Amino acid sequence: MAISDAYTKSFIQPRDALLMEMERFAEENYVPIMQLPAIEILLQMLRIQNPTTILEIGSAIGYSAIRMAKTLPDVKIVTIERDEKRIEQAKHFLSKSNVKDRITLLEGDALEMDVESTYPSFDAVFIDAAKGQYKKFFEKYSPLVKKDGILYIDNMYMHGLSDLDIKDVPKRKRTMIKKLHQFAEWIIANPAYYSTFFPVGDGLLICVKR
Amino acid sequence: MAISDAYTKSFIQPRDALLMEMERFAEENYVPIMQLPAIEILLQMLRIQNPTTILEIGSAIGYSAIRMAKTLPDVKIVTIERDEKRIEQAKHFLSKSNVKDRITLLEGDALEMDVESTYPSFDAVFIDAAKGQYKKFFEKYSPLVKKDGILYIDNMYMHGLSDLDIKDVPKRKRTMIKKLHQFAEWIIANPAYYSTFFPVGDGLLICVKR
Repeated sequence: MAISDAYTKSFIQPRDALLMEMERFAEENYVPIMQLPAIEILLQMLRIQNPTTILEIGSAIGYSAIRMAKTLPDVKIVTIERDEKRIEQAKHFLSKSNVKDRITLLEGDALEMDVESTYPSFDAVFIDAAKGQYKKFFEKYSPLVKKDGILYIDNMYMHGLSDLDIKDVPKRKRTMIKKLHQFAEWIIANPAYYSTFFPVGDGLLICVKR
Repeated sequence: MAISDAYTKSFIQPRDALLMEMERFAEENYVPIMQLPAIEILLQMLRIQNPTTILEIGSAIGYSAIRMAKTLPDVKIVTIERDEKRIEQAKHFLSKSNVKDRITLLEGDALEMDVESTYPSFDAVFIDAAKGQYKKFFEKYSPLVKKDGILYIDNMYMHGLSDLDIKDVPKRKRTMIKKLHQFAEWIIANPAYYSTFFPVGDGLLICVKR
């Protein structure tokens, strides 16, 4: 029996004033931040993994970076965003937070940027960025993940598009969804990772590097 | 949008012959073993936590104990079962497995048994036992969990009963469901644990000891 969203949310505690403000801002301005039940699970996984360095691809307004930094008191986070409006919003919210000293915002396209010469390795990489580019992000950034490190990849379900027969996917999205299917098949069969799909939020794939 | 079971299952790889035999046996004999998407997630959490000792309360036929032992090559598992028929079935399947040397089956009621004088501490405790006794199991066994250790508690959703107005719960189950609600409120507010609800399978609560 499917578990209701209301039941799941009954376990979620209130967040602090800044986070609640960011949640309202995201809702009012249609910024797609991670859904609450999914971010709670991501944070619990991170508590267990206890990484000291995280790379986030797709900062949006900085909500998940701030939550990760508040959850892990020693972590340092590098987060990449290419949208100028989002960058300004993220800077605004980061400046109001008490974790800004541990978060570095890089501005630009993660696929074109040289991250590795300054930041050669990470314990965790969190991919929450442009859709249909999963394989490219994975190929560029998975070599930076240490052994036993973890890649967290959000939005695998694409709000249900991933689950449709390809002929039922709107034409302009078919190439993206086909690429996503190919990525899913490739990573699940890839012996260099233990990959497990978590059916929470919009679908979270968690890949542990062997 | 809720994620379909079929999509979630598309990520699950085949298991070995013994495990598949146990899954068929459980289905044919109505033994409630953990649902596949939920056990995959439990195993991924355990890979990340990497415990060396696990206590399982509720062995059933030994399926989850065998899967945990196969996933973690160095782990030692103590598992408790009180049902005589299940104990015989568990012994049968354990004897056919290649992990039997790392699994100790204790026969009896976990609430009445003296486990701690022989096994004083565990990295992880997995509670998958008689319903309505969660708080009692938690109180008896959480002191055995080391700092940073984890309690994994399955079946919080009770196939939907937990989500009903108490007046809609069948009368003979009301006391059990009331106790479960009290347990859920108590553990979520308990500052000695970071507790997160995972909406998978029949509802998995994961409590990290601070």
